[in-house]
Amino acid sequence: MTLRIMKGVTPPSFAESFVKKKTVKNPYDVDALYEGVIAGNLLALSRSITLIESQRREHRDLADQLLTKLLPHTGKSIRIGLSGVPGAGKSTFTEAFGTHVTEDLGLKIAVLAIDPSSPKTKGSILGDKTRMEKLAANPNAYIRPTPSGTTLGGVARRTREAMLICEAAGYDVILVETVGVGQSEVAVARMTDVFTLVLVPGGGDELQGIKKGIVELADVLIVNKCDGDLQNAGDRAKASYQNALQLLYPSTSKWIPPVLKVSSIEMKGIDTAWETLQDFKEVMQEDGTFEKRRMSQARDWMWDEVGDNLMEALRSHPAVNAMIGELEGEVAHSRATPSSAAKAMMDAFVKSSYHGS
Amino acid sequence: MTLRIMKGVTPPSFAESFVKKKTVKNPYDVDALYEGVIAGNLLALSRSITLIESQRREHRDLADQLLTKLLPHTGKSIRIGLSGVPGAGKSTFTEAFGTHVTEDLGLKIAVLAIDPSSPKTKGSILGDKTRMEKLAANPNAYIRPTPSGTTLGGVARRTREAMLICEAAGYDVILVETVGVGQSEVAVARMTDVFTLVLVPGGGDELQGIKKGIVELADVLIVNKCDGDLQNAGDRAKASYQNALQLLYPSTSKWIPPVLKVSSIEMKGIDTAWETLQDFKEVMQEDGTFEKRRMSQARDWMWDEVGDNLMEALRSHPAVNAMIGELEGEVAHSRATPSSAAKAMMDAFVKSSYHGS
Repeated sequence: MTLRIMKGVTPPSFAESFVKKKTVKNPYDVDALYEGVIAGNLLALSRSITLIESQRREHRDLADQLLTKLLPHTGKSIRIGLSGVPGAGKSTFTEAFGTHVTEDLGLKIAVLAIDPSSPKTKGSILGDKTRMEKLAANPNAYIRPTPSGTTLGGVARRTREAMLICEAAGYDVILVETVGVGQSEVAVARMTDVFTLVLVPGGGDELQGIKKGIVELADVLIVNKCDGDLQNAGDRAKASYQNALQLLYPSTSKWIPPVLKVSSIEMKGIDTAWETLQDFKEVMQEDGTFEKRRMSQARDWMWDEVGDNLMEALRSHPAVNAMIGELEGEVAHSRATPSSAAKAMMDAFVKSSYHGS
Repeated sequence: MTLRIMKGVTPPSFAESFVKKKTVKNPYDVDALYEGVIAGNLLALSRSITLIESQRREHRDLADQLLTKLLPHTGKSIRIGLSGVPGAGKSTFTEAFGTHVTEDLGLKIAVLAIDPSSPKTKGSILGDKTRMEKLAANPNAYIRPTPSGTTLGGVARRTREAMLICEAAGYDVILVETVGVGQSEVAVARMTDVFTLVLVPGGGDELQGIKKGIVELADVLIVNKCDGDLQNAGDRAKASYQNALQLLYPSTSKWIPPVLKVSSIEMKGIDTAWETLQDFKEVMQEDGTFEKRRMSQARDWMWDEVGDNLMEALRSHPAVNAMIGELEGEVAHSRATPSSAAKAMMDAFVKSSYHGS
């Protein structure tokens, strides 16, 4: 015992208590993780998310077991998607919003992120927790940085599953953030109940970098930074966007996305933002749209994963992988038809698969 | 000979001259079709499109051969996508636009359609050629009704290939139409150089039925029916949409989608519409965006087809097909995780595939 301490070996931590010593290959105890998550234990929560982020096959199997056990405890949160260009103040808004939700309303919030482009090490949206200092220290807030991963599909799957785990752990509000570029907003909109776009006062230029179609994806628009000498600009931006949105939506729409003025640093309009999100949820619940959307999202997740798995199997197949570069070049320069190139890949894939590769 | 005529047997038609009598399984002569298409022969063109629409495997192989031969002759047209809700007057606009392009400019136009939801028999967008009587009778216009097909992927593939064949046949303008609902606009935008949205004077309500994100997809907006007592409403609509679009695009954009007033029945603004599309093409060509977009579209088509083929193989697999309904239900009702359901499908697919199904 003295020897262990001398060697600097500390007693087993809480996290380590989840580790099954007997099975070296599967160091996760699904039952213990399940109990921990249900009890709202932070270490169990973090460890569970680490498990579902793992790329190892045996971890994947355990992750599936854990998620299946947790599934009956999921679905009770409001899932909020949040996007906006860098500089729109997403982190500041999240901090203010999270503070309101936890301190004023007594709810628990989990903040996740989708950002397929930035590896963990390079500092993701949420990697820099200093931008959310107050929220990071809040016992009722859980902030999880972007999982690393090369493909959007992989990152999306992990974020969806992290969302389910947070729900099982009793978080009332899940906020899924993304930077305002690329396909990730679509992925976020496909996994949340309401999609929120954060803008700054200005006239369209703040949308630079926002992919086409994203404004129309938004259920709620937030004009952030409406403080100091930007107050008037904020009013103008709100009016302009409101006019634009009224044009983009039929007057018979049951929901025309509202444009809200917010000052995150002065905590102004944050309560209205929360109430608006609740209103949206209620309007969607009235005719069953809310529940239907979640059901169809779950089906879409399944098919997304099937598609990702199939494509991954194809792309990683040696025979196919060897021909991708050349086929892409041939097709781009009109030397081969997309159809014949696709067929060549399928032939290589199926043929070798049948012969045991 | 007398006997043949008595039986009502007519002499071989031009189309029949393409049929190889010797090979019953492959009744298409690729070389003859190729020569016919290159020569701009209408029957060869129609027969070639029928060939690429065929679902039979041996036809598919011939279609690939034909397309590969035709490929060097493709790419010289401007590919225009056209969408709008039913009632916006797409057919009337197409008739007016096609008439201008053929009669005033001396060009050839081909009109294709994407409409996955309506089977051929039920009358597609272009099934009713009476709505384009004048254009249908125009020797420099070729109108091809929607190909039948259940999946959007299948219909998109056929439309892309029909487009290539029309280009090889010397058509200068390809217009790909779609109704303003569902995913088909995205498919059209992915295969054309410029995406045009047809609206009617009104205030947003004409967008009812238009899927979210489609307005932001448009490169050119056309307010149709600006005639009679709708003139003032047309002016208002144009101004409103222009304001909205200026808000949706940064001022540094090299192209802010213009809003055009058009009266198709009075042939007003049709020439401006054509010139605007040419302007767009020139602006995009200046920095190489035009060519880059086509190259990336071709690569995307290849990957779309690979994805469609993989998904089709999976879905039609007996073991997988038998479990789809149940898995979708389990997932929708949170009794199974999307991930485990996807895994179950993949397992069934891969397992049986390895054992020769």
